[in-house]
Amino acid sequence: MFVLGIDPGLSRCGYACVESRPEGARAVAIGVITTPPSDPLPQRLAELQSELRALLVEFRPEAVAVERVFFQNNVRTAMSVGQASGIAMAEAEAAGCLVAQYTPNQVKEAVAGHGAADKEQVQTMVQTLLRLPAPPRPADAADAAALALCHLAYEPTRLAVARAAR
Amino acid sequence: MFVLGIDPGLSRCGYACVESRPEGARAVAIGVITTPPSDPLPQRLAELQSELRALLVEFRPEAVAVERVFFQNNVRTAMSVGQASGIAMAEAEAAGCLVAQYTPNQVKEAVAGHGAADKEQVQTMVQTLLRLPAPPRPADAADAAALALCHLAYEPTRLAVARAAR
Repeated sequence: MFVLGIDPGLSRCGYACVESRPEGARAVAIGVITTPPSDPLPQRLAELQSELRALLVEFRPEAVAVERVFFQNNVRTAMSVGQASGIAMAEAEAAGCLVAQYTPNQVKEAVAGHGAADKEQVQTMVQTLLRLPAPPRPADAADAAALALCHLAYEPTRLAVARAAR
Repeated sequence: MFVLGIDPGLSRCGYACVESRPEGARAVAIGVITTPPSDPLPQRLAELQSELRALLVEFRPEAVAVERVFFQNNVRTAMSVGQASGIAMAEAEAAGCLVAQYTPNQVKEAVAGHGAADKEQVQTMVQTLLRLPAPPRPADAADAAALALCHLAYEPTRLAVARAAR
């Protein structure tokens, strides 16, 4: 099963495709989509949309895990993060993926064991869990990988709840 | 020339396709796209995206005028308005339209003559300018029509500036 983690953003949108395997998770692709701040906003949004769609076509993930954004976090970039997250979720849903949102705290808890973990702890755990030679850079790419890992951690619970509800 | 005005929103997204003609602007279509609040967010966003794309295919507008959203306005709905506006702009750009954003004050100034005009004054002016039997309802549809009219009002200035810059 492939899970695509997306850390939405306009200047840098992190993504990570992680494969769940019996011997542990494996990173298939980790990176960032960037759009030039000098370009007009609609052009940047269309570019982001097209790149995200290309990732969905390339990896055909079963699930897409997107960071749940709260715009209290950063007033200056909140609107563009919201716009990017809207595009990401619409594209993932249209591609037939299960779309899950996780708060930053859920991600930290799932990956580093506690919701107050700092950026560095999360990055080190991402490196360990995916057996990478170094933590993914930039931070947005590592955050996307953490989102995918978070989805894999919550997935058994989600399935059990869905079964119980049937 | 067809201009599509979009008042972005998730529960109600207003749209209005207005045609510019020598004898005055004409409303081609005015309405709202609604998505059920009980549906999961990704599904609603994908539905909105698909409906907006259908409008762009149906009317092939030259320009799309989208309200510039500030999330100071309404903290509760700001994130979903941002998500909807991101989808609207990405789709319009991908469809090859000129995409323009206008602030609520620019719209009021262009349509009602002053930036402090209230909702009702704007709606009455929309009715008058488009020679409609009544103001468009709901308010989101009227706002979308005001956005399209605002674009038509600013268009000569925009073209002159573009010519001067050449």
